[in-house]
Formats: sequence, C-alpha cells, structure tokens
Amino acid sequence: MNATTSATTEDLMIELGRNARAAARVLAQSPSEAKNRALAAAAAAVRAGRQSILAANAQDMAAAQSKGLAKALLDRLMLDDKRVEAMAKGLEEVALLPDPVGQEMARWMRPNGLDSARVRVPLGVIGIIYESRPNVTADAGALCLKSGNAAILRGGSESFHSSGAILACLQQGLAAAGLPASSIQMVPTADRAAVGVMLRMTEYIDVIVPRGGRSLIERVLAESRIPLFQHLEGICHTYVDGAADLDMARRVVLNAKMRRTGICGATETLLVDQRVAATHLPVLVKDLLEAGCEVRGDAATQAADERVAPVLEEDWHTEYLDAIIAVKVVNGVDAAIEHIERYGSHHTEAIITDDAAAAAHFLGAVDSAIVLHNASTQFADGGEFGMGAEIGISTGKLHARGPVGVEQLTSFKYVVRGSGQVRP
Amino acid sequence: MNATTSATTEDLMIELGRNARAAARVLAQSPSEAKNRALAAAAAAVRAGRQSILAANAQDMAAAQSKGLAKALLDRLMLDDKRVEAMAKGLEEVALLPDPVGQEMARWMRPNGLDSARVRVPLGVIGIIYESRPNVTADAGALCLKSGNAAILRGGSESFHSSGAILACLQQGLAAAGLPASSIQMVPTADRAAVGVMLRMTEYIDVIVPRGGRSLIERVLAESRIPLFQHLEGICHTYVDGAADLDMARRVVLNAKMRRTGICGATETLLVDQRVAATHLPVLVKDLLEAGCEVRGDAATQAADERVAPVLEEDWHTEYLDAIIAVKVVNGVDAAIEHIERYGSHHTEAIITDDAAAAAHFLGAVDSAIVLHNASTQFADGGEFGMGAEIGISTGKLHARGPVGVEQLTSFKYVVRGSGQVRP
Repeated sequence: MNATTSATTEDLMIELGRNARAAARVLAQSPSEAKNRALAAAAAAVRAGRQSILAANAQDMAAAQSKGLAKALLDRLMLDDKRVEAMAKGLEEVALLPDPVGQEMARWMRPNGLDSARVRVPLGVIGIIYESRPNVTADAGALCLKSGNAAILRGGSESFHSSGAILACLQQGLAAAGLPASSIQMVPTADRAAVGVMLRMTEYIDVIVPRGGRSLIERVLAESRIPLFQHLEGICHTYVDGAADLDMARRVVLNAKMRRTGICGATETLLVDQRVAATHLPVLVKDLLEAGCEVRGDAATQAADERVAPVLEEDWHTEYLDAIIAVKVVNGVDAAIEHIERYGSHHTEAIITDDAAAAAHFLGAVDSAIVLHNASTQFADGGEFGMGAEIGISTGKLHARGPVGVEQLTSFKYVVRGSGQVRP
Repeated sequence: MNATTSATTEDLMIELGRNARAAARVLAQSPSEAKNRALAAAAAAVRAGRQSILAANAQDMAAAQSKGLAKALLDRLMLDDKRVEAMAKGLEEVALLPDPVGQEMARWMRPNGLDSARVRVPLGVIGIIYESRPNVTADAGALCLKSGNAAILRGGSESFHSSGAILACLQQGLAAAGLPASSIQMVPTADRAAVGVMLRMTEYIDVIVPRGGRSLIERVLAESRIPLFQHLEGICHTYVDGAADLDMARRVVLNAKMRRTGICGATETLLVDQRVAATHLPVLVKDLLEAGCEVRGDAATQAADERVAPVLEEDWHTEYLDAIIAVKVVNGVDAAIEHIERYGSHHTEAIITDDAAAAAHFLGAVDSAIVLHNASTQFADGGEFGMGAEIGISTGKLHARGPVGVEQLTSFKYVVRGSGQVRP
C-alpha cells in the first residue's frame, strides 16, 4: 500500500466506526421483537437471494482456484444450496435464543432503601476478523445483532463477493425491522491495512473476535489495542487414569481424537496413567491406529505397539488439527496435571476415571476453560453447552471464557432506584 | 536508567512473575479457611507491628517533606494510630466477605446427561500500581488473597518504607496460614522502569489495576499490554428533570457535589431542565454557593445568580475533584442524555425526577457503569453497593464494570461431569 491508500483506508474505517457507534446506541434500546424480526427477514432474504449468493460465491471460487488456493481452503469458501439453507436456519435459530439484553442478573435492596439491580446491556461495537468461510458473515452478524451490538465484519479477501451478497441479505432484514443499516457493516476494501486500522480503533470498537488460523490470531494478538475474545490454539488433553473403565476410555478417547480432527476441541495429546499402561494403553493405541490415526508416543507407548512413531518435544506443543495424536505414560493424576500446565493451551481437558477423588482433583487443579470428567473433549462447543450458537471460544480468563455466545457479548450496568437518598 | 539497571529490573520482575504464578496455583486450591486465617493473622500483625509501621512511615514522610511534596500528597502518605487500626480492621472485614472461589454460578443438566456447571475460579495474578497511599498495600493485597489471586504490588516510591512494613505484616499472616510467601509481593526497587516491565508481563500478570491520578492512569493505558481494571476519570452528572421535587433535588445535588469533592463519584456537572430553570435553578445554585462551591454556568445559570462564573467548553470535560461545579440548562431528558454521551466518562450519572417514564428512559439510555434515579452519585462505591471492599471502579465494559470487589477479581471455568458421553 502507499500513503494515499492508507489515509483513505483510515478515513474509511473511522467512518465505519462512527456509524457503528451510532447504530449501537439505537440497537441497545431496540426491543427483542425488532431484532428477531430483522433476523427472520434476513433468513427469508438469504433463501430468496440464494441464486445471487451462489453467483457471488462462484466468482470468489473462480478467483481462488486461479490463485491456486489449497483444497481445504476452497472447501471452506464454497457455498452450495445446503450451506445457504444452513445459513438461513442459523439466523432463525439465533432469533429463537433468549434476548440477554435487559435481563436482571441480580437485584437487591440496600438497608437505606436503594433498590439496586445489575442489568445486562450490550457491549457496544464488535469487530470480527475472519478468513475464508463466508457463512461467518451471517453467523457473527446475527449473534452481534441479537445481543444488541453493532458489528464491523472483516472477512478474507477471497470471500469478498460471497460475504457481500450475504451482507445484502442481512441489510434487507435490518431494513424490514426499521433498524439502522450500520448495525452490521463490512469493511468495503480488500486493503490489508484495514485490519491494522481496525485493531487500533479503541474509540469505536469494544471487542475484536478473530476467527481463523494461527497466523491470523498471532497477528491480531501482537497488534491489537482492543480487547480480544480468542484462543490461539486448542491443545486439548485426555487423561486416562489408573481407575478408568477400559470400555469407556476406548469410546471417549476415540471420539475425542477422531470424531472431527479439525476442530479446536479435538484431543491432541493422550496421557495414560502408568498403572494401566499394560492393560489400557495397547488397546487405546490399537483403536486409534485402526481408525487411521498416526500415533506418536514416548518409549512406553512405542513398547505397546510397534506402529507407534517416536514423539518429539515439539509434539507436546503442537495442535495437529489432523489425525495425529501424541501419547505419553504419566505417573498418576498429578503428573498429568503438570504436563497439562506445562504444554496445554487452557482450552479443554478431560479425565477418564472411576475414582471420584482423582476426578475432583483434576477438575479443580486444571486451569482450563473447560474441564470434563468421563466425557469427550469434542463437547467443547457453545451449542453442546446449551448456549445456542457461539461466535468463538475464548481461552482468556477475562469476561468470556470458553464458548462465547450472546450472553458473553453483553456487559451490564448497575441501575439504582432511590427516593432521595444521600450518602452520609 | 542505563541498560544494566534495566536488565536487572527486567530479571527481577520476571522472577516476581514466576513466583506469583506458582503461588497463584496454590492459592487457587486453598480453602477459604486458610485465606481467612492469613487475613486475621495479618490484622494481628499490623496491630502488633504498629510502632514499626509508624517508624517506616516517619522515614517516608521526612523524605517526602524534604522533597517538598504537596500537602494533599503528604496527607495521603501519612499514617497514624487511627489509620493503622483502620487498616487492621479492613483486613478483618475482607476475611468476613463470602469467598467467591468455588461458587457455582450456574449448574444445568444437558439432555445427554452431561452435568455442567460454571464455577468461579481466581483470575490468577493481579498487578496493582498505585501512588502514595500506603494502605493500598493492605487493602489490595487482602482483596487479591481473598479472591485466591497472587498480587504484585508496585507502590509509589514515596511510600516505599511504609508499604514494606505493611507487607511484612501480610507476610506474617501468610506464614501463619501456611500459604506461599509469594502470594503477595512488592516490587523491591524504586526503578521507574519496573512499571514498564510490569505492563508487558502478559505471561505472568492477568490484570493490572492502576490506582492514582490521571497521569498514572494515562501512562498505564498507553503502555499496558495487559488488560486493565481502571477508570481514567469520573465526570459524573446529576440531571434535575422538569418533574423533580425541589426539596429532593436540593438535598441530592448538594450531597452529590459537596459530601466529598475528591472522590470519583462526586458530581462535576449539574444539568437542569429548562422547565424548572425559573423555579429550581436559582435555589440549587444558591445552595451550592453557600456551601462554598464555585459555580460555573451557561448564560441561563449566570442569569439565575450573579455570583455564577461563565462556563467554558473545557469545563464540561473537567473532573474538578474540588468544590467547583459546571451547570447547564438543557431542554429535557434527551438533551441531558446527549450532553452526558458527549462529555461524560461512563462512570456514574443520576436523574432527579418524579416522572417514572423520564427516569426509565434515562436509566436505559445513559451508557454508564452506574445510573441512579433520585439518589446521590456519591453512592458509587463497592461498600455502598453491599459488595464489601473494592479494589477500584471500572468504566470499562469488559469483565468488571463499576466497583471491582472480590467477585470481580474472579473468572470461572466450565466443569462437566459425564458417564462416558461421546459427541455424535
């Protein structure tokens, strides 16, 4: 970029920011009914606009193919009838969620008669920075709208036309409900400098949610002056304790690793208590190998099955997002906790055991957003938690931790009702 | 500072950080009883160590006087028997607060039988950067300990000896309860570079709480890579609506401005509805003037009393923290809301009115941490809210908003108990 482009982009972004702030003030006071009407109308517009969305997507796909994008990226970018319908349904599902805004989180009377309440309010303006998946435009826009927040969306340049076509449908929904058009805006330039500007717009954006691969998150972490809801990676662990039921351990470990290997809640490291290294370990490893998983293990694991490759120090640090698992034999629950503290990403960890005391110790001591006893780490998902859709998962400890749903996209204020009280 | 000093300070700070992390892991698992025992023992140590605290304080006071510190600063720095006893009492009061750690904020069963809970956990390590008041050492240390967090305290260099003597008492308390000495640490150098290092220690500090004047907060805001609980200023407004009872308005406005002028919840700007400019305004202004408050007003306010000085644009932006008030006549509740949005600091605002609809509109539309109806803005305080002691007040919208007490010094995790569930 040259200086001129940059200045233009800066002005452009500040204008988006101003518009978003103004829209946020209106949205914060808009009734649930209007927001839900907008979401329903947007869903209808997505269905009615299917052809134009697919045409825009074809344009993006052609450009991506000619640029030689990897197959996995092309798959994320691609829309078809089914995916468009899923997007419309997603909008309708968000409309059905309870509206968090205005909820009284607590209400109490002070001895002096001050009637005090803690009431949920929107955060304000949410910035979403994502990569190739155009459906994030609909999902993230809907979650922000439902929670009364204005959204500034910055999708990947490869999905520019698809996202634009989806945004047009969201805009139809906003118009149908009489809500400000600037409630959901898209950065209208492919200039990469726009992201840098966004990350410094502390006056106009309250939270940034980066969604994408490690390099995107790292850039955002390094540059952002705005608080983030993010996880850099999900190096999730399953620990099979000495008191684990073998059948349960087999079922849960296989699911935790192999159900879907590309999601952040997939187990990347299996820790097995040495007390069951002879009985459980060979079976667990065999299951994984036969399901097509590459197993990299320490000496004890290699001894359990000759197909196990040696594990390297860097494996413990690696989020494979693939059919690969690192396996280590540990000396009991405390050693498992130590390993997780040293190598984990504070995302999601599970213990499999019939020993209630070991489970309680693990659940208490492991410092992760989600800790599970006798269940698969793949449950790390807002939908599975009953929170409805999520805009992401946070490994930060401030404000939102774990799945970030509509409730986590709110703040609160204290509303105090008196009858002339003064402070002594 | 030269490069050598800086490297030493950096190493020193990282060591504090490592120690704090290790202590935080222990504290997170420590029972309430141990934390409370430490607080009680620390209170006893403060009482028993009164002479040595006062001697250390005398040393600080002598140095401060010889440096010609302002009288207000000297008063903040000064300790006497009463203040030492108040500190000991404060420690005991924090011990009596409910322990937030381990509380189940929510618990629910999923259709698949997963028993899920959201459980409060400590944040981890809290950094507190403050100025001359040595009692912050005790208050902040106690609140962090109660909430299971390790604390790294960086007091002003002028209170170095006083804070050290107080820290020694806290350390005695920790030792008596068998808790790690590194649970509460003080930065052991007056090197100003230490603050810069602290603000970049993202690996070792989870939240920074800066407490002090505007220049400290501004520096921290500009430099910190760590999330903050802070308010830059409290430009609080009281709006006297056209439907306000005059007696109530007089009582509340006088208290809101004059009870204590130096606290962040003191009203700095009075907005009066033009409907009562003839009836209420002259009386309110007279009350303030007669209480010794300087009144700076717009043309309408100047017309109400000849002692009113003209107000300048910058007055609306100013947190006086003094017996000065800016007064403006506005055209109804919407104009009041607009003024607050434009000039306010999102801290605390009050409306005085007997009109329920106007009150509801104001409470809903004003985007501040605390909004009050028919009550004094001076109630903006954790103690007054029934939260017990507070470590500060936040005007940020993420995580903590308003008074920051022990509950706001916690995060949470999701604890999921299953019986072998796998995700379909």
